Amino acid sequence: MLRTEETICAPATSGGGAIAVIRVSGTQSISICDKIFFPSERKTNLTQQQGYTIVHGEIRSGEDIIDDVLISIFRAPHSYTGEDSIEISCHASGYIQQRILELLISNGAVPANPGEFTMRAFLNGKMDLSQAEAVADLIASESEAAHKIAVSQIRGEFSDEIRILRADLLHFASLIELELDFGEEDVEFADRTKLLEIVEKVISVTRKLTSSFSLGNIIKNGVPVAIVGNPNTGKSTLLNSLLKEEKAIVTEIPGTTRDSIEDVAVIDGIQYRFIDTAGLRDTSDIIENIGIQKTQEKISAATVIMLVADVNEGVTALKGILDSLRSQITGLKKKLFILINKIDTDTSEKRNEFKTGITLYEKESMLFISAKTGEGLDELRESIGSAIESYKLSSENVIITNIRHYKALSNVTDSLERVKEGLNNNLEEDLIAIDIRHAIHYLGEITGEITTDEILGNIFRNFCIGK
Amino acid sequence: MLRTEETICAPATSGGGAIAVIRVSGTQSISICDKIFFPSERKTNLTQQQGYTIVHGEIRSGEDIIDDVLISIFRAPHSYTGEDSIEISCHASGYIQQRILELLISNGAVPANPGEFTMRAFLNGKMDLSQAEAVADLIASESEAAHKIAVSQIRGEFSDEIRILRADLLHFASLIELELDFGEEDVEFADRTKLLEIVEKVISVTRKLTSSFSLGNIIKNGVPVAIVGNPNTGKSTLLNSLLKEEKAIVTEIPGTTRDSIEDVAVIDGIQYRFIDTAGLRDTSDIIENIGIQKTQEKISAATVIMLVADVNEGVTALKGILDSLRSQITGLKKKLFILINKIDTDTSEKRNEFKTGITLYEKESMLFISAKTGEGLDELRESIGSAIESYKLSSENVIITNIRHYKALSNVTDSLERVKEGLNNNLEEDLIAIDIRHAIHYLGEITGEITTDEILGNIFRNFCIGK
Repeated sequence: MLRTEETICAPATSGGGAIAVIRVSGTQSISICDKIFFPSERKTNLTQQQGYTIVHGEIRSGEDIIDDVLISIFRAPHSYTGEDSIEISCHASGYIQQRILELLISNGAVPANPGEFTMRAFLNGKMDLSQAEAVADLIASESEAAHKIAVSQIRGEFSDEIRILRADLLHFASLIELELDFGEEDVEFADRTKLLEIVEKVISVTRKLTSSFSLGNIIKNGVPVAIVGNPNTGKSTLLNSLLKEEKAIVTEIPGTTRDSIEDVAVIDGIQYRFIDTAGLRDTSDIIENIGIQKTQEKISAATVIMLVADVNEGVTALKGILDSLRSQITGLKKKLFILINKIDTDTSEKRNEFKTGITLYEKESMLFISAKTGEGLDELRESIGSAIESYKLSSENVIITNIRHYKALSNVTDSLERVKEGLNNNLEEDLIAIDIRHAIHYLGEITGEITTDEILGNIFRNFCIGK
Repeated sequence: MLRTEETICAPATSGGGAIAVIRVSGTQSISICDKIFFPSERKTNLTQQQGYTIVHGEIRSGEDIIDDVLISIFRAPHSYTGEDSIEISCHASGYIQQRILELLISNGAVPANPGEFTMRAFLNGKMDLSQAEAVADLIASESEAAHKIAVSQIRGEFSDEIRILRADLLHFASLIELELDFGEEDVEFADRTKLLEIVEKVISVTRKLTSSFSLGNIIKNGVPVAIVGNPNTGKSTLLNSLLKEEKAIVTEIPGTTRDSIEDVAVIDGIQYRFIDTAGLRDTSDIIENIGIQKTQEKISAATVIMLVADVNEGVTALKGILDSLRSQITGLKKKLFILINKIDTDTSEKRNEFKTGITLYEKESMLFISAKTGEGLDELRESIGSAIESYKLSSENVIITNIRHYKALSNVTDSLERVKEGLNNNLEEDLIAIDIRHAIHYLGEITGEITTDEILGNIFRNFCIGK
């Protein structure tokens, strides 16, 4: 993974659109591009071109003209990676991009690994590790809340908080280490009361940060909403109405929805992942049974569950699936909406049957809707909003969204709890020093002051190619 | 459509990837971007920045930082559109792109129509109409052959050919018009024999160009290959093997493939569109019947048809569908492959049954294959290649791929045929002059020397947004 001598190349945009951008970075990037690029003004030459300038011309392979392109030049250290870099802006044909990448590679570049551009930016000191991770979050951000967290993290607000904690601990650690140097002499440079204060302060911050993770995770990945119910109760129609576009195929035949379809919608700055599932009926159809197995997995992963019933089928048809659902989610932090659908065809008598026939538990709501006409859907959207009120981004606090940070911060808390215990029990300074060092180490892992190839590999593996 | 006072903006890349590019063009483009952009080096200012340079900084909306971006500046006339233009390179989050576009629009830009950037390039004389059309073809090119034609057209090779024809006709037209000016005097400036020669030369070129259209169309859109057969004969498996990836869902239940799935593969520089179709059986299943109706449409659109049979089912199971297929394609220019599949489970006795039981007509081939193990598939690929040999790009000739050019050239040929007939029958010069003018008009439409808002509207409507 850690090859920095090579010049790397990759597409930075994905299929479709009018133009595509190919990135090249490394010491050879300008000279490699110079070999395949023919500027439209003959006097210009990439190798003599200043950074932050653009040249127009053709990429050629022998006699073949591959494309008319714009070349942007960046010179070390003033580039994203900190290295000499080129961005080739070409027409967005897959064929053209493939030919250009082939040319770059045959002239000495190597295909970039996922996240390798950003990893080089980190290795060249352009950003710390938590900022590098936020780049991927920023690209993936599809809601106001997720965007806000990513921007704050890229600007180093989280890193700054971590660095302050680490500096505090480092100061005391050095005093403790000094005591150890004096060995037998029983001096006490580090004020134990003050150390305890610092440790408690750090613990309170790390606890606050780790507890923000569930909120951060929801914001980053969206609130999972599972839509379940008997076949032909209008689940796909409901999903379509909520998404306001036709994604799932809707027919009049029970059991049409075989694959789980996931789609996202942003309501009030929060992202929801709606999960349409196969009908929960007993069926001998093999394909459908695969779908039903998946349904149960989706229910266990969902924060909000919408059980859809057909008002015309009455309460009895609903009871089996409701009981089964309740048994699956009992004791779990999930909100259940019982949605009595197709009220456009309803008589109030049938509605009453549901109102009197079903006793609602805590965290359950029953709404009467028509997925077809849209009746009741605004109320449903509002109710979902209130149900996840606690997940809303209310403060200016730093929120963590990254499982790696969560684990590191939990380790910091654990180490410092042991330090606290040690201090309270007047433990030897060498034992206390070990746990302080651990805490410092874990804090350093977050920003990348302490790092290993394995940590870097794990982080950047999840990036997209070209970033 | 023809608004050139407005400053337009649009995303030029599509979803996914690491970075996205937003294009802005028009007299206000630089000043609009200057309002929302905050350069990282305070002294720089977009309005004072030279063309073909890049500035790094932040896009902000009030206090909110939207993104860290690179801004590329192009100054009229040295830009794609010929106008002042900006390209904003931002992170590829849909949310970020939406916010930036909103900011541009609230500061005075308008959303670009499809193809509006290229239309402005045409209106500003940066390219002619046929070159502008080739830009869309270049973006869509996914094979070597399609790319070659688009590049040639962008470089103006087709336009040059048309302009030479038009210049020849214009010369004679002016002489004929001169004769008309002299009215009664019965002078003859235009040598009739030479005019006839020119007309015949132009007709031979336009005929050659129009006849290249079917080839051009195949190259541009791919050779359509329909895969048909009884249920459970392995059509989806065959498609997957040909595409070497899992696209269609394969199960062991007859009738699984409900939607027609289209996928493309490039073999030897030619693109094929493989069309997987619903099983051709009599079924009472509503969804499947929709699929079967589509199958028949696909067959009539296909150049190559692959009828897949299960070797174990024997000849009888195949005969019905083969007869029905033959009756559908009789008299049409289609190549039929009868593929006896699942020979991995075969005995040679069963194969012989097919060899002796089926008499092949012209344009039919029978091959024994195993879609599962890949046996016989190389032979099949080669046979498809030979079957469309006549479609291969063999010469350096200009090939037309555009239905608009085809129609204009057909009109030119028709007009000139009338001129020829008129000359042979010594028709009055004023009647001949009308048809020459028509021919000149149609040739001018191709390159855009003659144009109307309607023509422009039709052409650029089919472009993608951002180009």
